[in-house]
Amino acid sequence: MRTLCPALANKTYFNYGGQGPLPTPSLQAITASWQRIQELGPFTGAVWPFVEQETARVRQALAALCDVGPHRIALTENVTSGCVLPLWGLPWSPGDELLLSDCEHPGVVAACQELARREGLEIRWLPVLELCTTHGQNALDAAVLAGLEQALTPQTKLVALSHLLWNSGSVMPITAVAARLKQQPNQPWLLVDAAQSMGAIPVEEAAAAADIYAFTGHKWCCGPEGLGGVALSERLLEQAQPTLIGWRSLRHEASAGSSFHSDARRFEVATSCVPLCSGLATSLELLAAQGTAAQRLERIQAGSRRLWQGLQTLEGVNTLLPEPPPAGLVSFTLAGRSSAAVVERLGEQGLWIRRLDDPDCLRACTHVTTTEAEIDMLLDALRALA
Amino acid sequence: MRTLCPALANKTYFNYGGQGPLPTPSLQAITASWQRIQELGPFTGAVWPFVEQETARVRQALAALCDVGPHRIALTENVTSGCVLPLWGLPWSPGDELLLSDCEHPGVVAACQELARREGLEIRWLPVLELCTTHGQNALDAAVLAGLEQALTPQTKLVALSHLLWNSGSVMPITAVAARLKQQPNQPWLLVDAAQSMGAIPVEEAAAAADIYAFTGHKWCCGPEGLGGVALSERLLEQAQPTLIGWRSLRHEASAGSSFHSDARRFEVATSCVPLCSGLATSLELLAAQGTAAQRLERIQAGSRRLWQGLQTLEGVNTLLPEPPPAGLVSFTLAGRSSAAVVERLGEQGLWIRRLDDPDCLRACTHVTTTEAEIDMLLDALRALA
Repeated sequence: MRTLCPALANKTYFNYGGQGPLPTPSLQAITASWQRIQELGPFTGAVWPFVEQETARVRQALAALCDVGPHRIALTENVTSGCVLPLWGLPWSPGDELLLSDCEHPGVVAACQELARREGLEIRWLPVLELCTTHGQNALDAAVLAGLEQALTPQTKLVALSHLLWNSGSVMPITAVAARLKQQPNQPWLLVDAAQSMGAIPVEEAAAAADIYAFTGHKWCCGPEGLGGVALSERLLEQAQPTLIGWRSLRHEASAGSSFHSDARRFEVATSCVPLCSGLATSLELLAAQGTAAQRLERIQAGSRRLWQGLQTLEGVNTLLPEPPPAGLVSFTLAGRSSAAVVERLGEQGLWIRRLDDPDCLRACTHVTTTEAEIDMLLDALRALA
Repeated sequence: MRTLCPALANKTYFNYGGQGPLPTPSLQAITASWQRIQELGPFTGAVWPFVEQETARVRQALAALCDVGPHRIALTENVTSGCVLPLWGLPWSPGDELLLSDCEHPGVVAACQELARREGLEIRWLPVLELCTTHGQNALDAAVLAGLEQALTPQTKLVALSHLLWNSGSVMPITAVAARLKQQPNQPWLLVDAAQSMGAIPVEEAAAAADIYAFTGHKWCCGPEGLGGVALSERLLEQAQPTLIGWRSLRHEASAGSSFHSDARRFEVATSCVPLCSGLATSLELLAAQGTAAQRLERIQAGSRRLWQGLQTLEGVNTLLPEPPPAGLVSFTLAGRSSAAVVERLGEQGLWIRRLDDPDCLRACTHVTTTEAEIDMLLDALRALA
């Protein structure tokens, strides 16, 4: 896999959580898809079977990863579309409460704030960041559930909680949260931002348990930018209306009087880039050839553990998590150094990590393509800066 | 241009209004863009200037075509996103009326119907199709404005009218409609679906006059599928809130407390496919090398006139328009034949036109790449079927 990624050939790369490298076979699949579309179409009776085949291929692959039927997968442009589009079409009433974890991505938070403004909803916060920095992963699950218990009210209509937190790198107990929400009298919706989990850890149980499980293909799945998806629950498909409506949302695309698709396609919109489907499907096949999701996670964890342990030996460095990370995100601070300056200095050496604003910290990611030598180079460079 | 398009090499193509062919240099630009992103990034300090450059390049090219500042252009995935996203964020009150022409695309109509359902709005219809079939283009403008006069009420808050009607192929008097709406006490918004006009006819006056002028790059501009844009008026930028919100909508992308961009980027969402920007910019350059928009329209009209005139000589064939079309869309019926069967029979001969549902008819498009020989082949084939 590593040798198939030109992005990894000329740099030491730790930003998989920002964007994954695109393997050459995936780019070739994208180009071949475009050429085939030109040969058959682009708008002819001969091209539709090919378009349908490539779309169905990636939908089925994503459905298999989520362990749901393909009818529960909507293809989207990015993880934000997957989170936000189904959200807007839920049946809201003024006074309903949205309970957001304090580790959600700014885009999702801003979308919830705008929804709350228009619909007269209340936003409440579920504090999980501090729990992450003070609990090991095993104790963390119980602490998060205890926090949820305190935060739920009879007005809570939705809980937004990422599966793998983008800042601390902790895994959230999504299936246990889903089970708890089922016991609430008004059964709040569960929105899960899966930007960091899809392609990095096994997701099937969480994806099947959430109402909205939204992911992208361009991070840990190593697919092209501009294509993601969302797994939707049966009850959401029954109760939520689409908001951004186009011909792909409609059962009979040529008629405005048409009803919406009854399956997840009601949340798809209009023309998108079909060749990206060919690219993502290829990337998913390349990843699958590296082992099962559980096997790949073991390799990811071996890398992040090596990095986390190495960071413990550096003066002035503090990891956010008190124990080796459950996946590939390793966040830390470097005392007395501006995070932006550290990123820049490392970049000058061809070593790429990123900084986060909230909390202000540095984040390095290990994937199945990360080598021990790369991790040791990063540790050496940080030692020189520390 | 024609020789640069593999899609035109092995078929006789008249579906530019569905999707334009992608020139080989545009596909090469897309591939090169992806390779450059891998070389520099994909997520590094070194890649952002390239991403910004390619995004700005296409934004500026589209702004120039629309004769508006680049701050008024939002990049979108497709024409539906461009129409519908700004629409949802306008300040609606129950009882407001949406006045839609009877020639709008089903996707836009369905989106307006859902908006009306949620916000308690009324939908009214502006009949233009019958005017198109009974008036020459010069008389049509006055007839449409007279129809508008009759249809406007004090409650009209938005008018939706395509610039170039996708079914009849008539041009609508957008600037005159915009001027008339300015005289209404509550100044209704003007939403223009520019799916068929952008890349086919000069659009600058209409784009600058509308509040929402939404287009795609993958039809008459011959760009890749999955990238379009929308030109937005200054008053819309001041008064409309974004709905589908992500990091690209936010002034400070890392902070959920951030305000939205004050310019059109507030309607952009999150990660999209940057290489498509490189492809569309290349296609626009290739088109510009064919002449000005006015010069290209003359060539397009020469083709559509030849086709329209030829159709007059065929037994059982009726064109929708009573005179040669103002642009490249030629719609007609063939008495006693199912439209679907005609499309299929022609397709078997490598001749591609499409059918439309409302009104039930056939549509063939001519672009600057269309040859007289192609038009004559289509006429011969239709003569054999008629």
